[in-house]
Amino acid sequence: FNRHATICYSKYLKRNLSLLKSMLDYALMYFLIVWEIQTGKFSITCLPVHLTVSPAAERLRYILGDDEETMPTPTLFTEMDTLQHEGDELEWRESARWVKFEEKVEEGGERWSKPHVSTLSLHSLFELRTCLQTGTVLLDLEGYSLPQIVDDIIERQIEEGLIGAELRDKISFVLLRKHRHQTKKPIHRSFADLGKSGSGGSECSIFKTVPVSPSIPTHIVHNSRSMNDIAETPSTDQLKNKFMKKIPRDAEASNVLVGEVDFLEKPFVAFVRLSQATTLGGLTEVPVPTRFLFVLLGPLGKAKSYNEIGRAIATLMVDDLFSDVAYKARDREDLIAGIDEFLDEVIVLPPGEWDPKIRIEPPKKIPSSVFSLNELGQMNGTAGGRGPVSEDEVMPAPHELGEELAYTGRFCGGLILDIKRKLPWYPSDFYEGFHIQSISAVLFIYLGCITNAITFGGLLGDATDNYQGVMESFLGTALAGTVFCLFSGQPLIILSSTGPILIFEKLLYEFSKNNGIDYMELRLWIGMHSCVQCIFLVATDASYIIKYMTRFTEEGFSSLISFIFISDAIKKMVGAFKYYPINIDFKSDYVTAYKCECLAPDPSKSILGVEHTLLSKATYSWTVEEYTLDWTQLSKKECVKYGGSLLGKSCKYVPDLALMSFILFFGTYTMTVTLKKFKFSRYFPTKLRKLISDFSIFMSIMTFVGLDMLIGLQTPKLIVPTDFKPTRAGRGWFVMPFGKNPWWVYVASSVPALLVTILIFMDQQISAVIVNRKENKLKKGCGYHLDLLWVGVLMVACSFMGLPWYVAATVISIAHIDSLKMESESSAPGEQPQFLGVREQRLTGILVFVLTGVSIFLAPILQFIPMPVLYGVFLYMGVASLGGIQFWDRIKLIMMPAKHQPDFSYLRHVPLRRVHLFTLVQIVCLAVLWILKSTFLAIIFPVMILGLMVIRKMLDMVFSQHDLAWLDDILPEKEKKKKEDEKNTTKKDKKKGKGGDDSEDVSVLVVRLLKERRRLLGLK
Amino acid sequence: FNRHATICYSKYLKRNLSLLKSMLDYALMYFLIVWEIQTGKFSITCLPVHLTVSPAAERLRYILGDDEETMPTPTLFTEMDTLQHEGDELEWRESARWVKFEEKVEEGGERWSKPHVSTLSLHSLFELRTCLQTGTVLLDLEGYSLPQIVDDIIERQIEEGLIGAELRDKISFVLLRKHRHQTKKPIHRSFADLGKSGSGGSECSIFKTVPVSPSIPTHIVHNSRSMNDIAETPSTDQLKNKFMKKIPRDAEASNVLVGEVDFLEKPFVAFVRLSQATTLGGLTEVPVPTRFLFVLLGPLGKAKSYNEIGRAIATLMVDDLFSDVAYKARDREDLIAGIDEFLDEVIVLPPGEWDPKIRIEPPKKIPSSVFSLNELGQMNGTAGGRGPVSEDEVMPAPHELGEELAYTGRFCGGLILDIKRKLPWYPSDFYEGFHIQSISAVLFIYLGCITNAITFGGLLGDATDNYQGVMESFLGTALAGTVFCLFSGQPLIILSSTGPILIFEKLLYEFSKNNGIDYMELRLWIGMHSCVQCIFLVATDASYIIKYMTRFTEEGFSSLISFIFISDAIKKMVGAFKYYPINIDFKSDYVTAYKCECLAPDPSKSILGVEHTLLSKATYSWTVEEYTLDWTQLSKKECVKYGGSLLGKSCKYVPDLALMSFILFFGTYTMTVTLKKFKFSRYFPTKLRKLISDFSIFMSIMTFVGLDMLIGLQTPKLIVPTDFKPTRAGRGWFVMPFGKNPWWVYVASSVPALLVTILIFMDQQISAVIVNRKENKLKKGCGYHLDLLWVGVLMVACSFMGLPWYVAATVISIAHIDSLKMESESSAPGEQPQFLGVREQRLTGILVFVLTGVSIFLAPILQFIPMPVLYGVFLYMGVASLGGIQFWDRIKLIMMPAKHQPDFSYLRHVPLRRVHLFTLVQIVCLAVLWILKSTFLAIIFPVMILGLMVIRKMLDMVFSQHDLAWLDDILPEKEKKKKEDEKNTTKKDKKKGKGGDDSEDVSVLVVRLLKERRRLLGLK
Repeated sequence: FNRHATICYSKYLKRNLSLLKSMLDYALMYFLIVWEIQTGKFSITCLPVHLTVSPAAERLRYILGDDEETMPTPTLFTEMDTLQHEGDELEWRESARWVKFEEKVEEGGERWSKPHVSTLSLHSLFELRTCLQTGTVLLDLEGYSLPQIVDDIIERQIEEGLIGAELRDKISFVLLRKHRHQTKKPIHRSFADLGKSGSGGSECSIFKTVPVSPSIPTHIVHNSRSMNDIAETPSTDQLKNKFMKKIPRDAEASNVLVGEVDFLEKPFVAFVRLSQATTLGGLTEVPVPTRFLFVLLGPLGKAKSYNEIGRAIATLMVDDLFSDVAYKARDREDLIAGIDEFLDEVIVLPPGEWDPKIRIEPPKKIPSSVFSLNELGQMNGTAGGRGPVSEDEVMPAPHELGEELAYTGRFCGGLILDIKRKLPWYPSDFYEGFHIQSISAVLFIYLGCITNAITFGGLLGDATDNYQGVMESFLGTALAGTVFCLFSGQPLIILSSTGPILIFEKLLYEFSKNNGIDYMELRLWIGMHSCVQCIFLVATDASYIIKYMTRFTEEGFSSLISFIFISDAIKKMVGAFKYYPINIDFKSDYVTAYKCECLAPDPSKSILGVEHTLLSKATYSWTVEEYTLDWTQLSKKECVKYGGSLLGKSCKYVPDLALMSFILFFGTYTMTVTLKKFKFSRYFPTKLRKLISDFSIFMSIMTFVGLDMLIGLQTPKLIVPTDFKPTRAGRGWFVMPFGKNPWWVYVASSVPALLVTILIFMDQQISAVIVNRKENKLKKGCGYHLDLLWVGVLMVACSFMGLPWYVAATVISIAHIDSLKMESESSAPGEQPQFLGVREQRLTGILVFVLTGVSIFLAPILQFIPMPVLYGVFLYMGVASLGGIQFWDRIKLIMMPAKHQPDFSYLRHVPLRRVHLFTLVQIVCLAVLWILKSTFLAIIFPVMILGLMVIRKMLDMVFSQHDLAWLDDILPEKEKKKKEDEKNTTKKDKKKGKGGDDSEDVSVLVVRLLKERRRLLGLK
Repeated sequence: FNRHATICYSKYLKRNLSLLKSMLDYALMYFLIVWEIQTGKFSITCLPVHLTVSPAAERLRYILGDDEETMPTPTLFTEMDTLQHEGDELEWRESARWVKFEEKVEEGGERWSKPHVSTLSLHSLFELRTCLQTGTVLLDLEGYSLPQIVDDIIERQIEEGLIGAELRDKISFVLLRKHRHQTKKPIHRSFADLGKSGSGGSECSIFKTVPVSPSIPTHIVHNSRSMNDIAETPSTDQLKNKFMKKIPRDAEASNVLVGEVDFLEKPFVAFVRLSQATTLGGLTEVPVPTRFLFVLLGPLGKAKSYNEIGRAIATLMVDDLFSDVAYKARDREDLIAGIDEFLDEVIVLPPGEWDPKIRIEPPKKIPSSVFSLNELGQMNGTAGGRGPVSEDEVMPAPHELGEELAYTGRFCGGLILDIKRKLPWYPSDFYEGFHIQSISAVLFIYLGCITNAITFGGLLGDATDNYQGVMESFLGTALAGTVFCLFSGQPLIILSSTGPILIFEKLLYEFSKNNGIDYMELRLWIGMHSCVQCIFLVATDASYIIKYMTRFTEEGFSSLISFIFISDAIKKMVGAFKYYPINIDFKSDYVTAYKCECLAPDPSKSILGVEHTLLSKATYSWTVEEYTLDWTQLSKKECVKYGGSLLGKSCKYVPDLALMSFILFFGTYTMTVTLKKFKFSRYFPTKLRKLISDFSIFMSIMTFVGLDMLIGLQTPKLIVPTDFKPTRAGRGWFVMPFGKNPWWVYVASSVPALLVTILIFMDQQISAVIVNRKENKLKKGCGYHLDLLWVGVLMVACSFMGLPWYVAATVISIAHIDSLKMESESSAPGEQPQFLGVREQRLTGILVFVLTGVSIFLAPILQFIPMPVLYGVFLYMGVASLGGIQFWDRIKLIMMPAKHQPDFSYLRHVPLRRVHLFTLVQIVCLAVLWILKSTFLAIIFPVMILGLMVIRKMLDMVFSQHDLAWLDDILPEKEKKKKEDEKNTTKKDKKKGKGGDDSEDVSVLVVRLLKERRRLLGLK
């Protein structure tokens, strides 16, 4: 191999000799070729010679590649201490530390800087490289204490002739000075120091004569051990340091010591790896055993430069790859190879475009090593595409719905798989629910559920003449919800009455009334038929067709549901203004003109004995008493009851309530949004902020309930039925299947049942797909078939009891998931918390529904909640569920000038006008759906979702598969073809790769292995 | 010099020979020394040899240093085109461009990426360096067309033996392919191309046979000219390109062409500088003449690598220093030196801590070259301090109030200087006011002023039994404001009545009433005395004492005023709830019980002839009519007037108004804040957003006035007096100085006048200092003495007319400045707009006050504005003026955990607990002032500011001067001492610097010159 390099070099020299003007140029040429050889890259000036495996990569492969199976190396915590002159004394003071990112001690501010990316100078890296080449490298030193290690280092240096023996004591003295760490508590320098040195014993007293200038006293005590300022055991400060919990448990420390002294003429450099990590007394801020030690002492006047070198080695030590190399290096050259590999990957910022003073915040995501792999491959010209942007042209990950929706072909195959999948998680579904976050989730969803139950209950009552009312709604919600949460495949889904069902019931009731058919019995039969149909769908794995539903359809559906939530909330609010009209003509001065009097019905009629045709009999029977009544004392209701008429300007107005309702509504919404955002504020500790954010809805509700109670206006309150009996007097708790309708109705009801089945199937499964989205990182799998089975069974149960039917509610389910999201506690300072997944369990759901059931007894508490507050919660739910939807992001894009648009990945790959066109198609679809929904066609609403799927299919003709892959997902039919395409590409790549020879592939392999390793380490 | 290097090298070799294990290591060692020599840095391994001036720096000094006086070189626009294979044809497609930052073509997205900092790989920079060393460098080529230039390049390459003559045509063919630029319009590739090549003529048709693979047809036409695809003149697309306006006018282009071809075996590299910038047809996106051309063609398979090299040279070309070097380079080596200098300054990001995929947003500020100078100095070990953080220990810039406050010692010296300073700006003070922003400023300040005028007018009327009322307030504001804006030294200051004056008037009126002294005459004499005293203060330059006022005092004062604004706004709002009480017991059902009836006074008394002792005579005379009155028809006022009594539950309540007022108040405030922030939103084009932000207050007011009109409630409206006459009937428009009071009052009034003078002096000058703050970047200077003179003169004028007295109003003045702030239009894409200063002119002020005067006639329009809306504006003013105050930032710090605190510079230098202590002292001071203000001591309020100054003086004992320099400002007394300190430090530095020899200083000088140049270029 060396021969190769020499050939290349001499060829190069020959060719370029004419250009070489000076010896320096010649040398530089030389370094550039060598540089490139060293780092495993071709020099483009050297192309004809096929020099492939770089020595650095080869070395690294050798030391890292063999033992791929061994344990990963421990995480390194690096602390850098610099030599400082505090008054008369020398001491090592902590100046920065690294867990993953750099934290600097702000000397003046006596505190830690924010974690930031270490920006290094190229120069310091080169200097560090030289240091490691010339200095002492001691690997696997048997060290048990710092003085012994220091002795060993100095001994070696003297052996190698790097320093004179006369410096032994001086260096030892400097290296064994006390270490002062940056702790949270302020350092009372003068007092603490004086106290310590005073009581420190006689060996310290002699140094009182040390001059202020940073020189070492000449009359040094010869026994270096007695000069040791470093304690043998960790101090209490170290043990108490709370920073410890930010460091992984298996961590080991690497200590970097840099400083300038006046007795050296050239730098004293040592890199030590201990054979066993050892706690070296007060060397490290935290009681973490030290494994590595880097010492750099140099002559005066270059402190800044030493400091930069120290930062460079510290940054290297926390680099995943280099720390591996450091652990496994056999000799100096391995370390150098590690630096070279590091240098090879650094990112360079041009000086004119970046201010080095800016501390770069840690990135949201740790480097994606996939890219680095790609890029490196392409740099080597092996996997490179045509254009310069080819690396971006990678298609997004294909749309996957997971094995849950695979078509088994067996009877109940899907269902059995669902049960098998969910059963092992069943115990954890309960114990994992015990978490503070669950409380807030339960409160939030509970409030959403009862609001929903009341709203739909009221509407159903109107639609069915109270056959189903608020009471049934509460009971049904509690029953269906609890059962579903207990046994379903996806307990995060919240069941609820939905709009389409409501409309169906309304039409059904009207139909039965007009045709003299018993509504409850008909409904029961429809429920039974529908249940059987559902079970049929479950048994045949019919849910698999859901995988033809792409983001286009999903987002269309969930946006629509969100809009319905928002518009309902606003409608209700506007309703308040109608229900409590404001007297806009009110003039304070004419207050005397405003009154509302109850006038007795024209007494002449009564006297004349004319029959009160307009009054009911009940009222009529009271006519005797009418004369005895003091009409002016009657309340409005009584007045109307007794047939009086209200007269006056203020009769139809209700002061303050409309505006108060608005304030409560808008206030609840605004406060919730504000508090939710509070997580990203700078104030208060992270945990408190998270708590506030988690409980934002609860706090907003409490605040505005409090405000409402404080002001004491008669705002409309939440009214929960208190008597446990069916809303309609005539019906019982159980519906008999036979007896009231002719026999053919039992058969014919299968036709409307089919509609209901489609309706339930679509509603349920779309919501399930949305809940099970990959973005939510659910780990316990889901069960589309199992869910549908339970929905069907619950339908029969509800039909028998005359309760409403329930399916998955998209918005509340999304809210449920959002309130259960987990984020990683950031371990290393500066690392961004990552979204880990959702607290998947059954407990919150069960609690919500049990609470809903119990609500009937909670009426005395719940009656303080004003309805406008709940509408505010509704509005928030609708708006919040729009948040994660790409469709909504794209709508916002329309209003943004191109240069302000966020860097969405699809914007890099799809022309803006195509993106807008796609958005526009979606908007039009939604508008059409919205219009249809407002008519009687609402009943076939879920069927229209099928229409969306058809439109999506047609979009294949308008948009290229490439664009759709970015904006939406590829439909499954294309999967095969795509795979073929992929194969083709790979083949092409391979063909192209043939340009190099075989050894090139080896090189690539090595690099890939290394990168892979880095990635694995990064994920750990 | 070369000898030096050789010595260093051989010494080095000798010492390290034992460590060298392989030839490669040896070579690498070599490069490292040489590297360090080359870039002007000491290698720490090479310390004994004093090698000081690096050849790179020497070269650069030679080519840049001599002609420091010559014109700066033009700005460079760089475009990078890559060779692409479009169907059968080859073409150059634009892939990125640089004005200052990189904009990449998103191939898929067919659009420009956001401007970002170019992150390069170290490797590509080294490769570029090799390219420039081995390739053809043609400097000052006489080129008039691209074909000719291409011919010249190829000729030279053949001459130098770099390519064979047989490649001539092929290369020429490739280089003369058509260039396709990324324009805003979508490129309809297939159609446009087909059409063009069809009509393109016969010379293109032969290429139809070119295979899809990227190879050049073998049967190339031999005349390379005929293969030219490039137009001679710029196309219409180029001329129409709107991007042109983002490029400075003097700009020249540098074109980078990179691509891979199949006929080359090694890269073909050329760097060309034309002697004259020439428009080379369609080469560049915009019609900017090309000066530089970089061509890199290479063998297949390394497109990515070539691309990176292209990005590297493009980034270099837009670097200030390198572009200078490129313009002035004499030969290849100069360019290489430029790269070395660039490499020396790059910032390196470690690969494990940063994702190269992230596009780094351009920094807010362009690199501070001062730092880079410092750092470099320290790296060389010359100016370095002790510790590693010494560079941060630079003290903040000292507190400067400018020459306006210098003590001249001459009679009226300051005043004369003020006039001399302001006179030259006088014409521009008018014509610079013509700007759209002025309209919004006028509207904003006008509304603030009339609200203020009405509020204070009302309060003054109460306090002085209408001797001064709303009418006087309007008139006085208009008069004083107009005169002040016309002739003052700082026309940005807005005059207004202030709290202390109000309290003084109140006490004075009470005093005169109780002692039988004529108030108006006494007030006139106080005004006259005070004016004389003011003139005395002006003549003696007394305003200079203001410079002892530091940030501590200033911010204390302005915070207090802001808090008063906020508390007043809230108080007024709460007042509405008292004025329009809400009937919280209202129950809709009992509406019949609510009424308010007017009951006639007990008629029995009248009948019995008992005298109506409780009723006034006027009422008594009506008693005859009392019987004829229909009491129930009377309005509330009439009822009270005629002595009736109101009876009923609804009498004392006013429905809806309180809540409506709250909605208007809070809505106006919230909407203003939201719209003000809209400037930073992503939506809509920048100009529109700026407009919305500028007019936020106006838009909010309009919106809520509209809402109020829509709902039509009788909310309290702005009432402007319409009759031009004094508020109190008994007084005229002119106050006579003699006649009503005894003679001694004329003399004695000088004592209260003294208080008024202090009051006015402090109030006026503190506001002036706040307005004239350095942060506001005022360019036209100010005139403390001139201002005070006019305030004094206006005082007499107002006294004679019986109008209130006026001084500078802090909050409104700050609002005035804020509304007139100018920001630079960002020129280069990605550059952040900089705060340029304030539109200093007299026009807005004059207009505001003229409008205020005219307001008396605008009553029909103004009466639609509800008062709560104006209170909302008040609240906004108060909150907004807190925004820029450091004190307020520090209060917020108290609530933030250390790690979330923003990176304020003082936090890096002052321990947090000291910062908090300082804040706490300020809070206590403010609390005391607030309490005092609420008592009768309010009259000596401005005197208390003097107290603040005393407390600040005492803080010198608690805080170190270092801490105070960061948190506050050093008091002027310390100035001398500080200078001495500085001298000492410099001396020390010099002493330390003596370590090196003289040549070192030369080196530093060179570097400094270079950096200075960079800085100058950067500022340009």
